Amino acid sequence: MSTLGFIEYEKASAEVRAVYDDIMATRKTTQVTNFWKALAHDPIRLKRTWEDTKQIMSAGALDPLVKELVYVAVSVTNQCDYCIAAHTAAARKKGMTDAIFNELMAVVGLANQNNRLVAGHQVEIDDQFKAQG
Amino acid sequence: MSTLGFIEYEKASAEVRAVYDDIMATRKTTQVTNFWKALAHDPIRLKRTWEDTKQIMSAGALDPLVKELVYVAVSVTNQCDYCIAAHTAAARKKGMTDAIFNELMAVVGLANQNNRLVAGHQVEIDDQFKAQG
Amino acid sequence: MSTLGFIEYEKASAEVRAVYDDIMATRKTTQVTNFWKALAHDPIRLKRTWEDTKQIMSAGALDPLVKELVYVAVSVTNQCDYCIAAHTAAARKKGMTDAIFNELMAVVGLANQNNRLVAGHQVEIDDQFKAQG
Amino acid sequence: MSTLGFIEYEKASAEVRAVYDDIMATRKTTQVTNFWKALAHDPIRLKRTWEDTKQIMSAGALDPLVKELVYVAVSVTNQCDYCIAAHTAAARKKGMTDAIFNELMAVVGLANQNNRLVAGHQVEIDDQFKAQG
Amino acid sequence: MSTLGFIEYEKASAEVRAVYDDIMATRKTTQVTNFWKALAHDPIRLKRTWEDTKQIMSAGALDPLVKELVYVAVSVTNQCDYCIAAHTAAARKKGMTDAIFNELMAVVGLANQNNRLVAGHQVEIDDQFKAQG
Amino acid sequence: MSTLGFIEYEKASAEVRAVYDDIMATRKTTQVTNFWKALAHDPIRLKRTWEDTKQIMSAGALDPLVKELVYVAVSVTNQCDYCIAAHTAAARKKGMTDAIFNELMAVVGLANQNNRLVAGHQVEIDDQFKAQG
Repeated sequence: MSTLGFIEYEKASAEVRAVYDDIMATRKTTQVTNFWKALAHDPIRLKRTWEDTKQIMSAGALDPLVKELVYVAVSVTNQCDYCIAAHTAAARKKGMTDAIFNELMAVVGLANQNNRLVAGHQVEIDDQFKAQG
Repeated sequence: MSTLGFIEYEKASAEVRAVYDDIMATRKTTQVTNFWKALAHDPIRLKRTWEDTKQIMSAGALDPLVKELVYVAVSVTNQCDYCIAAHTAAARKKGMTDAIFNELMAVVGLANQNNRLVAGHQVEIDDQFKAQG
Repeated sequence: MSTLGFIEYEKASAEVRAVYDDIMATRKTTQVTNFWKALAHDPIRLKRTWEDTKQIMSAGALDPLVKELVYVAVSVTNQCDYCIAAHTAAARKKGMTDAIFNELMAVVGLANQNNRLVAGHQVEIDDQFKAQG
Repeated sequence: MSTLGFIEYEKASAEVRAVYDDIMATRKTTQVTNFWKALAHDPIRLKRTWEDTKQIMSAGALDPLVKELVYVAVSVTNQCDYCIAAHTAAARKKGMTDAIFNELMAVVGLANQNNRLVAGHQVEIDDQFKAQG
Repeated sequence: MSTLGFIEYEKASAEVRAVYDDIMATRKTTQVTNFWKALAHDPIRLKRTWEDTKQIMSAGALDPLVKELVYVAVSVTNQCDYCIAAHTAAARKKGMTDAIFNELMAVVGLANQNNRLVAGHQVEIDDQFKAQG
Repeated sequence: MSTLGFIEYEKASAEVRAVYDDIMATRKTTQVTNFWKALAHDPIRLKRTWEDTKQIMSAGALDPLVKELVYVAVSVTNQCDYCIAAHTAAARKKGMTDAIFNELMAVVGLANQNNRLVAGHQVEIDDQFKAQG
């Protein structure tokens, strides 16, 4: 289920299929997940969102596992159930062990706590931390 | 400035000084940052928060730089200016280059965008992603 | 289901029924939605919340469809599943097409992304944008 | 400063002055805070927001100090600097001691941490906690 | 269900059982809730999180009911369904009546509204509210 | 100020200048705002973010003013001060009057309030609103 429903491969336009094909090839899978099938009602946005995602999540100065961990951390902070489920699975595929998951959760929990303590105490930024750029 | 003001080392109780000493020794610095000086009005909470932070942020299955990146990602998602400033500096000290920073921001931005697209489209979780545990 | 349960029309006090009647008349429907039935345990709050909602969401300098789109955008940003479902339906009733929905989601996603990029880069407000009032 | 500027008492319409007078009488002060002066460009919204605030924050099943503490907790969780500053001051006026403030912050920090741990671990609601109503 | 599954008492290590025993003794119950069973894969974090929670939520300058109300307020603001369900039940056990619940919700709703009005109007902090510490 | 500093036109690479030129031409202005100058340290991301923004915010099924209003609504809900300032100015340039601004704020405040009331009351989605797609 989704607001506009899912566009399955068989019913997709050539434009949408080209994106689906690239998703499956890039991720080495035969399944397109619900997120992309929900976006496919707007083929331009589907293509743009996929290309951005592919480019941003690929290896660079940060390796793909670290990127997935960061993605999970953001999704947890935003309470996005779908994203937590999907990216926890993706992180595991890229090597996240249970030990890594547990440490990740600890850091996410701590940061969320300390973020609020700082706000609540109205703590002024230390001179040494002020952006100099 | 902070709600209750800062407790400086010279005016701190022995209990608070012991925490400050451990902070400086652990971080190899001669400065205690404003966050800890704001919490020091409640020495038990100061000690607990520091000990949790020290334990969680130290090396384990994840290395300390990755933990700092995750901390920054959460702080950005929560719009906590102080935390962003302090942990961007901490991440740099642990090896974050400009290239890593830029990629980190790209992932954080993307995840925030996609989190909302999922919510807005009311996308149902794929069977393959449902928690099995 | 809801924390205190729903108060159905048949069991409602005269005070609550008067609000329910106004909701149905204003919305040209024979159904009162779960939100109002959950609030009805506190008739004063029910009345206040409904009257505020009615006044704010009615036509003014902004037309009702635009108001619904803004409501959906906020609900998506807050990850409120109920609100997304209810106000997506309301927006459709007021004329939201699939094309409008897709563009709305694109803007909401973009704003959420750029909000975080700004925070993460600690971007100072341009002089030209500073509130002058 | 604010987007539309502040409407000072001397320049206010009779309608706005009536609200300002009620604010000052209710709060036993001779000052109207910036929040209300920013809203006063829309006298109907000013009146509605003030009357809602006055009604909600007055004594009832919860005493006014507890209500202020809850207000601060929400404002901290939303990272609203203005609101934290204003309602911390209001809570003090109603009897919040430093010890209460420190405990409040501890609870707010803890809840923010545990909220994320629950989301990150995708914890299913216990049967005993499911809404029965 | 949860990401790593639940660790039931019968299968738990001595270390985990010690925490479970303390949870049940402290809360005067024979059940350990899902949250703790999900965290138990990381016994050190389980112990730390429980001890922090126990210490923070116990009676002090604030009574335990007020602490639960604050916890609920934060959980509602973060849209954490599990936490709302669990802590609404906990608050009731500690004496929250329906009237208290309704007033709590009114304050939480109001604060969330006013937090955004302040941000949207870019309201500057009043001099009288600026942190002096 | 920003984390990495701003890249001014005179010091920018040809690649970055091309984006700056397109920004100024599209927006009919001679100034590039701080946001873009902060992103310019990563020319690929600068280009991608600008092209996405340009495409998404241009006229389509929704007119550019409505898109700006939605952008402001999201930024207010996320408490992003920079974004509120910049997009309030942009909305005004596109025709936002004070009356529209005041109504926009009213809707944003209301939605934020009602989102929390729904969550706090654990209101189940009405059958009529469930996604059918």
